[in-house]
Amino acid sequence: MKSLEARKRLLKGIFEGAVDAVSPYTAVKRYVKLSRAHILRAGTTTYDLRSYRHIICIGAGKGVCGMARAVEEVLGDRLDGGVVVTKYGHSLRLERIHVIEAGHPLPDRNGIKGAERIVELTRGLKRDDLVICLITGGASALLPAPPPGITLRDKQYTTRLLINSGADIGEINTVRKHLSRIKGGRLLKNLYPAEVITLIISDVVGNDPSTIASGPTSPDPTTYHHCMEILKRYGLLQRIPPSVRRYLMDGMRGKIEETPEPGNRIFKRCRNIIVADNLRALLTAKKMALRMGFKTLVLTSTLTGSTHQCAGFMGSIIKEIKCSANPIKPPACIIAGGETTLEVKGRGLGGRNQEFALVLAGIIDGLKGVTVLCAGTDGTDGPTDSAGAFVDSSTLRRARLKGMDWKRYLRENDSYNFFKNLGDLFITGPTGTNVMDMVVAFVE
Amino acid sequence: MKSLEARKRLLKGIFEGAVDAVSPYTAVKRYVKLSRAHILRAGTTTYDLRSYRHIICIGAGKGVCGMARAVEEVLGDRLDGGVVVTKYGHSLRLERIHVIEAGHPLPDRNGIKGAERIVELTRGLKRDDLVICLITGGASALLPAPPPGITLRDKQYTTRLLINSGADIGEINTVRKHLSRIKGGRLLKNLYPAEVITLIISDVVGNDPSTIASGPTSPDPTTYHHCMEILKRYGLLQRIPPSVRRYLMDGMRGKIEETPEPGNRIFKRCRNIIVADNLRALLTAKKMALRMGFKTLVLTSTLTGSTHQCAGFMGSIIKEIKCSANPIKPPACIIAGGETTLEVKGRGLGGRNQEFALVLAGIIDGLKGVTVLCAGTDGTDGPTDSAGAFVDSSTLRRARLKGMDWKRYLRENDSYNFFKNLGDLFITGPTGTNVMDMVVAFVE
Repeated sequence: MKSLEARKRLLKGIFEGAVDAVSPYTAVKRYVKLSRAHILRAGTTTYDLRSYRHIICIGAGKGVCGMARAVEEVLGDRLDGGVVVTKYGHSLRLERIHVIEAGHPLPDRNGIKGAERIVELTRGLKRDDLVICLITGGASALLPAPPPGITLRDKQYTTRLLINSGADIGEINTVRKHLSRIKGGRLLKNLYPAEVITLIISDVVGNDPSTIASGPTSPDPTTYHHCMEILKRYGLLQRIPPSVRRYLMDGMRGKIEETPEPGNRIFKRCRNIIVADNLRALLTAKKMALRMGFKTLVLTSTLTGSTHQCAGFMGSIIKEIKCSANPIKPPACIIAGGETTLEVKGRGLGGRNQEFALVLAGIIDGLKGVTVLCAGTDGTDGPTDSAGAFVDSSTLRRARLKGMDWKRYLRENDSYNFFKNLGDLFITGPTGTNVMDMVVAFVE
Repeated sequence: MKSLEARKRLLKGIFEGAVDAVSPYTAVKRYVKLSRAHILRAGTTTYDLRSYRHIICIGAGKGVCGMARAVEEVLGDRLDGGVVVTKYGHSLRLERIHVIEAGHPLPDRNGIKGAERIVELTRGLKRDDLVICLITGGASALLPAPPPGITLRDKQYTTRLLINSGADIGEINTVRKHLSRIKGGRLLKNLYPAEVITLIISDVVGNDPSTIASGPTSPDPTTYHHCMEILKRYGLLQRIPPSVRRYLMDGMRGKIEETPEPGNRIFKRCRNIIVADNLRALLTAKKMALRMGFKTLVLTSTLTGSTHQCAGFMGSIIKEIKCSANPIKPPACIIAGGETTLEVKGRGLGGRNQEFALVLAGIIDGLKGVTVLCAGTDGTDGPTDSAGAFVDSSTLRRARLKGMDWKRYLRENDSYNFFKNLGDLFITGPTGTNVMDMVVAFVE
């Protein structure tokens, strides 16, 4: 059995390889290819570029610049131009696509400007125009586009009211989509009748294009009617700003166009392609672990639910491998991904990945030959500078030697300081992409 | 893809095979064998019966009679006699071992009598006596043996006080073990210096012999001191019956012998053998599923935590198999076991297995080719006559056709009536054994 440090290096290598496979640049390069100088292949569909007059590229997200650079490389001088919006400090120098930096996670005036630039650039497109639309995590906040007469502040106030009333994420998004000129398929409406290819890096469980960045090029089955029902349900109809109320009432009365519903002809002109997701990262991790000599299982890429409970289930599988060589024989590597939900009650510092690791530490305590990395693929876990943490069978013993009571750290949700004291944080810096979280466990 | 009814038959077959492998009779027969008329093999140890003067058999539990019958068959006339205590209605006719029926889950006077009979029968044993001790689920309640001066009612009152004060199961058991002449290794103390073989059917996660039936032949690291601390912690010292307080004080002052601690020489004369557990049932299920042509994974036999969250994790693995053929390709069979915890808030009827199934129904809704059985190996799930339930991709559709709102059933914890209406209950009657719960999922 190798040392903890040697194991950490292997796990770090797996994480880096997995994240690289879902980096915006790599992901686009994998799905979008040009052959014979005029055949563009995007996923399983081909486009003959000779039949298009203009080709432009738009998009938004924290990782959008890497995607845009790949598009520029593939299309070369066939690309006529474009605009993408990214977070402050996340831009790359591009040849033909204009980059605008804006606020995230809080939208700001630059975001509004960016959204306007995209709406302008795509006005009056024709059937023989081709739009490549790029979406990564953060796009929703980076493209605030309240409809005429509603200020960004009114819209944000409405969203906050809903959150505080206990509305669920589906209900909040229904209202949000109707208060936007981009979300809920409205961007695509603006692009019609141009041909549209939307390339998406998915940061949500299930990869539903209508959920990622609130689906700017996806159908929206909800209506103004639903919005009013939701606001009534939570007693907010008299509390939302008058501008918002007036707008939604007008929508109900048919004075404002609805978001495009499924089946609308505009969707015939658009293809949404997921170019990177959690599963892709996990499968890359699997390939690397196999090469290192581990029997490897990818359990799931759709982990949701309580962080503690998911860690418990994962821990029970690890224990089973040690006890009975099920589901596979050691040396085994078990991989899972998704996004768990951490209920924070304490005042400590941490994130769901670090806390997942801390819960696991309790389960694998003393179980020789187990080493686990829990990390966010974006390189950030909660409000910390760490992507996650390493744990092994010696974690709690080493903590005790330092006089640390791990249960106190758990109670206080202080996983960051726990792993900082042990030197077991996993610090990568921002990775430039985000396909949620991953757990990689060696069981030898 | 075969019909639901065909799939149910296969799952029923797997369940029956798995439960049969952990039935008290089969389990003992597998572990205990006689060769050359005098060599007794129990697990990996052999005993030369020629070196023992008397061989007796004692034990308790709901399934103890099946174990006792197997012991009689193996030892034949080498067995000198014995006493076992089982639940009312659970006795079998035995040749040499006396059966006493008593109350379960609430202990009663017959239980006290049974415990006394065992203590009497095993008094004054010598080094050349051999005791075979049989333990299955329920043994703890079936052998109430409060120490002299404490009534059963005093003891039960003390336990209830602890439960209502929020003491955890470890704390409750610490006090319980010290208020018993049998638990916490005290039965073994009574048997010393005889040779002891304890055969155990484990109904707890982790198979810790000191937890199963409160460990009558296992070491107990806790002391009278710990008992007093626990009672103080919950402010119960002045609320427990005076007889109990006096007894524990006497214990602290060294006037009463402690429960035997780990390392005590009496444990050199005893071997605790787990003859059946959840894993054995799961591995049998695996063998059967393989024979039916399914690629099969046993995920874990130590499932604990929230019923809903465990079902969520299981559901995410099933979805992954359908989406990406990970962790294994269809046709796949995924098996897991253990004991989850159901938080009951509604007023409906159900159990943790039926509710596990109901949660899964929501996750696999419409996912063709998925059929799952969730069931308790004892044939009972919660306060119902069902062992569990079947679900498949059509469960919710069929419920909707009957006008049933599955979420309401979930909110009301009314899984029993949900599955009863659909005809998807899994009713077996008592199986005569208990190694907790199992989930078997076909994904084709």
